[in-house]
Amino acid sequence: MNVPTFAVDTKDAVARFMRIRRQTLALCAGLSGEDLQVQSMPDASPGKWHLAHTTWFFEQFVLGHDPDYRSPNHEWHYLFNSYYESVGPMHARPQRGLLSRPTLGEIRDYRARVEEAVGELLVRGVNSELAARIELGLQHEQQHQELLLTDLKHLFSCNPLQPVYRDIAMPGEGRIAPLRFLPGRQGPVDIGHEGDGFAYDNETPRHTTWLSAHALANRLVTNAEYLAFVRDGGYQEAGLWLSDGWTVVQREGWQRPLYWQEDLASEFTLTGVRPLDPHAPLCHISYFEADAFARWAGARLPTEAEWEDAAARLPVHGNFQDNAHFHPIAGSLGDGLLQMFGDVWEWTASPYVSYPGFKPLPGALGEYNGKFMNGQWVLRGGSCATPRDHIRASYRNFFPPHARWQFAGIRLGQDR
Amino acid sequence: MNVPTFAVDTKDAVARFMRIRRQTLALCAGLSGEDLQVQSMPDASPGKWHLAHTTWFFEQFVLGHDPDYRSPNHEWHYLFNSYYESVGPMHARPQRGLLSRPTLGEIRDYRARVEEAVGELLVRGVNSELAARIELGLQHEQQHQELLLTDLKHLFSCNPLQPVYRDIAMPGEGRIAPLRFLPGRQGPVDIGHEGDGFAYDNETPRHTTWLSAHALANRLVTNAEYLAFVRDGGYQEAGLWLSDGWTVVQREGWQRPLYWQEDLASEFTLTGVRPLDPHAPLCHISYFEADAFARWAGARLPTEAEWEDAAARLPVHGNFQDNAHFHPIAGSLGDGLLQMFGDVWEWTASPYVSYPGFKPLPGALGEYNGKFMNGQWVLRGGSCATPRDHIRASYRNFFPPHARWQFAGIRLGQDR
Amino acid sequence: MNVPTFAVDTKDAVARFMRIRRQTLALCAGLSGEDLQVQSMPDASPGKWHLAHTTWFFEQFVLGHDPDYRSPNHEWHYLFNSYYESVGPMHARPQRGLLSRPTLGEIRDYRARVEEAVGELLVRGVNSELAARIELGLQHEQQHQELLLTDLKHLFSCNPLQPVYRDIAMPGEGRIAPLRFLPGRQGPVDIGHEGDGFAYDNETPRHTTWLSAHALANRLVTNAEYLAFVRDGGYQEAGLWLSDGWTVVQREGWQRPLYWQEDLASEFTLTGVRPLDPHAPLCHISYFEADAFARWAGARLPTEAEWEDAAARLPVHGNFQDNAHFHPIAGSLGDGLLQMFGDVWEWTASPYVSYPGFKPLPGALGEYNGKFMNGQWVLRGGSCATPRDHIRASYRNFFPPHARWQFAGIRLGQDR
Amino acid sequence: MNVPTFAVDTKDAVARFMRIRRQTLALCAGLSGEDLQVQSMPDASPGKWHLAHTTWFFEQFVLGHDPDYRSPNHEWHYLFNSYYESVGPMHARPQRGLLSRPTLGEIRDYRARVEEAVGELLVRGVNSELAARIELGLQHEQQHQELLLTDLKHLFSCNPLQPVYRDIAMPGEGRIAPLRFLPGRQGPVDIGHEGDGFAYDNETPRHTTWLSAHALANRLVTNAEYLAFVRDGGYQEAGLWLSDGWTVVQREGWQRPLYWQEDLASEFTLTGVRPLDPHAPLCHISYFEADAFARWAGARLPTEAEWEDAAARLPVHGNFQDNAHFHPIAGSLGDGLLQMFGDVWEWTASPYVSYPGFKPLPGALGEYNGKFMNGQWVLRGGSCATPRDHIRASYRNFFPPHARWQFAGIRLGQDR
Repeated sequence: MNVPTFAVDTKDAVARFMRIRRQTLALCAGLSGEDLQVQSMPDASPGKWHLAHTTWFFEQFVLGHDPDYRSPNHEWHYLFNSYYESVGPMHARPQRGLLSRPTLGEIRDYRARVEEAVGELLVRGVNSELAARIELGLQHEQQHQELLLTDLKHLFSCNPLQPVYRDIAMPGEGRIAPLRFLPGRQGPVDIGHEGDGFAYDNETPRHTTWLSAHALANRLVTNAEYLAFVRDGGYQEAGLWLSDGWTVVQREGWQRPLYWQEDLASEFTLTGVRPLDPHAPLCHISYFEADAFARWAGARLPTEAEWEDAAARLPVHGNFQDNAHFHPIAGSLGDGLLQMFGDVWEWTASPYVSYPGFKPLPGALGEYNGKFMNGQWVLRGGSCATPRDHIRASYRNFFPPHARWQFAGIRLGQDR
Repeated sequence: MNVPTFAVDTKDAVARFMRIRRQTLALCAGLSGEDLQVQSMPDASPGKWHLAHTTWFFEQFVLGHDPDYRSPNHEWHYLFNSYYESVGPMHARPQRGLLSRPTLGEIRDYRARVEEAVGELLVRGVNSELAARIELGLQHEQQHQELLLTDLKHLFSCNPLQPVYRDIAMPGEGRIAPLRFLPGRQGPVDIGHEGDGFAYDNETPRHTTWLSAHALANRLVTNAEYLAFVRDGGYQEAGLWLSDGWTVVQREGWQRPLYWQEDLASEFTLTGVRPLDPHAPLCHISYFEADAFARWAGARLPTEAEWEDAAARLPVHGNFQDNAHFHPIAGSLGDGLLQMFGDVWEWTASPYVSYPGFKPLPGALGEYNGKFMNGQWVLRGGSCATPRDHIRASYRNFFPPHARWQFAGIRLGQDR
Repeated sequence: MNVPTFAVDTKDAVARFMRIRRQTLALCAGLSGEDLQVQSMPDASPGKWHLAHTTWFFEQFVLGHDPDYRSPNHEWHYLFNSYYESVGPMHARPQRGLLSRPTLGEIRDYRARVEEAVGELLVRGVNSELAARIELGLQHEQQHQELLLTDLKHLFSCNPLQPVYRDIAMPGEGRIAPLRFLPGRQGPVDIGHEGDGFAYDNETPRHTTWLSAHALANRLVTNAEYLAFVRDGGYQEAGLWLSDGWTVVQREGWQRPLYWQEDLASEFTLTGVRPLDPHAPLCHISYFEADAFARWAGARLPTEAEWEDAAARLPVHGNFQDNAHFHPIAGSLGDGLLQMFGDVWEWTASPYVSYPGFKPLPGALGEYNGKFMNGQWVLRGGSCATPRDHIRASYRNFFPPHARWQFAGIRLGQDR
Repeated sequence: MNVPTFAVDTKDAVARFMRIRRQTLALCAGLSGEDLQVQSMPDASPGKWHLAHTTWFFEQFVLGHDPDYRSPNHEWHYLFNSYYESVGPMHARPQRGLLSRPTLGEIRDYRARVEEAVGELLVRGVNSELAARIELGLQHEQQHQELLLTDLKHLFSCNPLQPVYRDIAMPGEGRIAPLRFLPGRQGPVDIGHEGDGFAYDNETPRHTTWLSAHALANRLVTNAEYLAFVRDGGYQEAGLWLSDGWTVVQREGWQRPLYWQEDLASEFTLTGVRPLDPHAPLCHISYFEADAFARWAGARLPTEAEWEDAAARLPVHGNFQDNAHFHPIAGSLGDGLLQMFGDVWEWTASPYVSYPGFKPLPGALGEYNGKFMNGQWVLRGGSCATPRDHIRASYRNFFPPHARWQFAGIRLGQDR
């Protein structure tokens, strides 16, 4: 069983491991066992489950290779496997919230024991395969940090008391660059991951694709711009929507983005209910809404290749989890492409499918990405809930077209 | 607004109030905030919700009459109203488990504050209407004590770790009286509540009904007897079942009582997984199963009038919550009717409808019982989760015919 | 295998058999194969299926006893068994409408062949058991005549073209007796079938029950009276409804009786869309609506025993299928109880359960009535779609509380 | 309002119009009004509805432009609009089967009247826009001819009597070319419609895309090859399936292709239940099954660009509706790519999305294709139910990944 290996700086490995693991717990500061217990919908998971599952991942895929390692809680394997059919049966996803035991305390102990064991491995020195598995475990943990925040936000939004996750001030109302469309490259380009750094299997292999004449908006769509769509009757006009989207709009009674309040002037955030900043990037919309807005605006969404080709030449700067705003903020000014990284994931016009020549990871890890290549759309760029060192230009996120609980927004594109 | 009044011994009122309220918390000893947070199915409620709702009941129906009382948590009214449409809108029942806030600690404080306020009222002295409302609140609290236990049992049963609620020894395997049928009275009899003590509106008015020639089994159906039904193919034989019951059996794949393990030799209990005591009363079956078993046995279920007329002449003895077994136990020997009270609620052949001349309580309290008179069947006698001083011969419990998570069992009856 | 026997006038047997069978076809006159093909909801059946199923009933339960009889269509047995688990598996009820084959022509031929075979049996002479089975088949056929009409009405109501079943004039606007409450008997009374005539098993045994002091309305509730309830906000007032009923009202958006048009001034009938006759009996309401209306009116529904004891002393007169109005009509005047038979089935306050000492029919026929004794309410008196010679005072019809597509209405009762 | 125009041979226009319209009716020969009435699932439509809807299409989009034209059945507009939101509300799709009126006879008359009116238009001479609309109507009619057959097949498959649509002999067991992989072109290629002939908007614009190194199988996957997958436990091995596919396999209990019988030796066809021809092309599988089979076989599905680039150089030969086999047949031998057209639609690895620069048709016709670009996969090549003159290399069909009732099969592809 071979996992593709890549260069790891073993000197910093322990520090990096502990830093990321601690950050997960830091995100839980101020949350009670009750807050971390609840599953607010089948798509979401309890915070406690995220804490346990990310730990199980190291136990299963890293420590499991150590013949001397004995799991202290053998039966938890069943509870905290997410979807790896090839390593055994698992607890049904919609019932994760029923597990009041093990308690939060027991799971914290579990985290500590597994961290100690992995730490020892790292100190003893690991071969490149094990290093790769540990890195995968850390990347996986960072993904769940983001989900922990978005799942908690959804849970709190269901509570009529509208609890506040972090009682912090937001930056004042921001300024905004005028909307411009910047032409992209045309003809054959190469996309996909290259080089020694970590990447998921779905970013490979690097390959050639063809870009048609096009342009990308210089910045994200703002709340004010989306509000104009809402006020113009966007949610009542069937002709703007994909057929599946129109069905959802009617069935769910969608009238506005997920967390906007009925007054269209404020929104529920992780820092409480706040006035809507007109210049801040719109977020918490589905692909269907992104696509309808783009049609209304006489534009379209970018393809993932158009996006990546442009992003690959930019530094990874932006409003990330590290900033601890936990919300997109109004923005940076400048001449080129702005806000390509951070703030919100950007829906693209690309269904999530494999790249030509794609090979999933071997063994159970092969279930990581490939088996979800149906019915989802690619998002790019990371969000205010993504750790800065988790993202890169070739990174492919994906969600079903009706999903709204992620920090997802819109950048427009155009045919030229 | 008049609530029917009855004699209250005001001297003991404070003691009784505090005793019952403390017992609710005592039942929660050893449970974490997480255990009390989860709602395992729409029919069940989180323990935390039970703690809050029973407190809200006193606030709404007792303290609400005090013009000086100010609720410290005005918006909780919405969260902890169960189903009283006439006092305002309420949080959707299936979403009770989403309320991670208020926290368990806040709800304990809420309980303490309301208890103090009611205690002061009692010390100052209450008129008979207020006394009646306080008594109703206590009876209501006792009902929720039982639900707290059955809901928790269901939650723990969903957890593959099969947590233990109380780690106590059960009595050894019991002895059993031979099954006999004892003839009941025939002709006109009076049933329904009489006298000064507390009763729910649905037990009134006392009225005449007519009993046909019949007999009642001297004791409850045992696990061994029900096992014979299972082994005889009872769950595969359509002819034994009501049509609606057969539909449920097939849709849900029922093969045995709710908490019996697949080996038919052990069962999940609040004290852990235990060997099935052959002589202990069967429990956790639905009306459909009770009815099918009776048909298989060549008998029928008793009507509630047959049951009440027989029970009214017996003392209220039995295995109740007070015994802290939290499970039915094998039983008492003797010549007459045994196990009429406690151990398990007994399904009757009587749909839950109003007595002739029934008048619901006035105002919002009128929603207490009357509006549920559709599609449910009457159960009698209380269970091992019922407080002893909560039950009486005229007490009418009711559940839908598919419900299995209550401590419900079978006494057979016969036409003569 | 014994079916309870009763006196049959064998001389008229053939004539009666053919008359009832022909009436079924007469009801289909003017309907196309397409009209008789469609199943508009799972509760309804296609007309073609009614034609075949009533024929299968004779084949299964009458001809099946003749060792010489060979079914020409062996595999149809599976298709046209309704719910008799003990005679074999059956086609799923909600898929009856998928059977475009056998064609209507083939089913007419099937009817003719079976009629010929049963006719020959009758001419040769039948023993009392076979006579009883034939009579049961005819009673069964008459039940399906009524369903054929109500199922067709539902189908046509789903068609935006609002087809007309019979293009006939209705009687002009009728007159109406003032509403009065007439006292019923109090104390022990006997109800249930007695005598030699045909009755279903569920009407037996005749037995004693006890009537409390009560009165019955002298006539049915009219459209005008129900309209007052609608205009008074009856469908918006939770306090008037059973809890289950309120759930249905909100889920289904009920605002008025099933076939009333939005203008509250006209209704869809089998004779087309007609102005609402204010004095005609209300119909096409559920038990939930009947119960809520009675509560609003400060009354209650009669029990089935109250109804039967009163009806048993009246002749069976009324507006039946034989009148070919296919709709209730405004009514008879007079001093006593009016409209007890015909026009609309009257919802009672009695859940459908067995009488004391009830014994189902032997064998497969035992599935006829007894297995439906859960979750339904008794209706009495027959309707404008019932054949006159099908009904009697002891007749017990039953439907679930949400059913609205039958001709069902309201007579009020009162405690005294 | 402009529809893209293209060269039409007006001389043959009337003949072509009548030929295609007559063919639709010819496909209904031998079917009763009942057969054409039933809707066997929400995805399917009644035959009668297909007959009416294709006629409505001409009335709406062709005759609607004639100010003198008066629809004889104004209210049918509502009934027979399929999904064109911009021309008005429509009858709910799952309720198409409830319309027993208008009758088949009335719809035949409707067809005749509209045909007469369109025929007159054509004789008088039409401008290029109207000619384009008529051609679109004919192409649309041909699509519905195919659906009429697949919907009828589904209906008959639900009938335990397994009716036969056409009682004809199938060709004997066929021979088969050995499976070989033929390399395709690599680098930039142009795909999409070009030239004067008719094409749907979704085939345009012609544009450049990039092909990676690849090969295509020389022929379709056979029944024998798929049987090996079934026998190898393909339906039990989660690792072979997309996650969504595995969910469907388990929920629906899929064990084999839709119409294969349980014996794995015969299948339900439009010509009756027939032995499975081992060499005939597999059909009636979903995208999920195609994808799983390809993974099991160590291959993958072709992309639509790979398929089209190869097909564009081949003549449009194959087993089409015109052959009147109504089933795929074992095949042609030869050296190159075989069976590219006809027999079965070939699932591709391409989600159905717009081509770069795609512009939907103007006005209501813009709803024809574009709004379905979510959650579906492209199929290529036509089937045994497709008219020969309806298909071309650039033709893009699309269905959701779970759809199995179309004649859809598999051609394998490979990375090189």
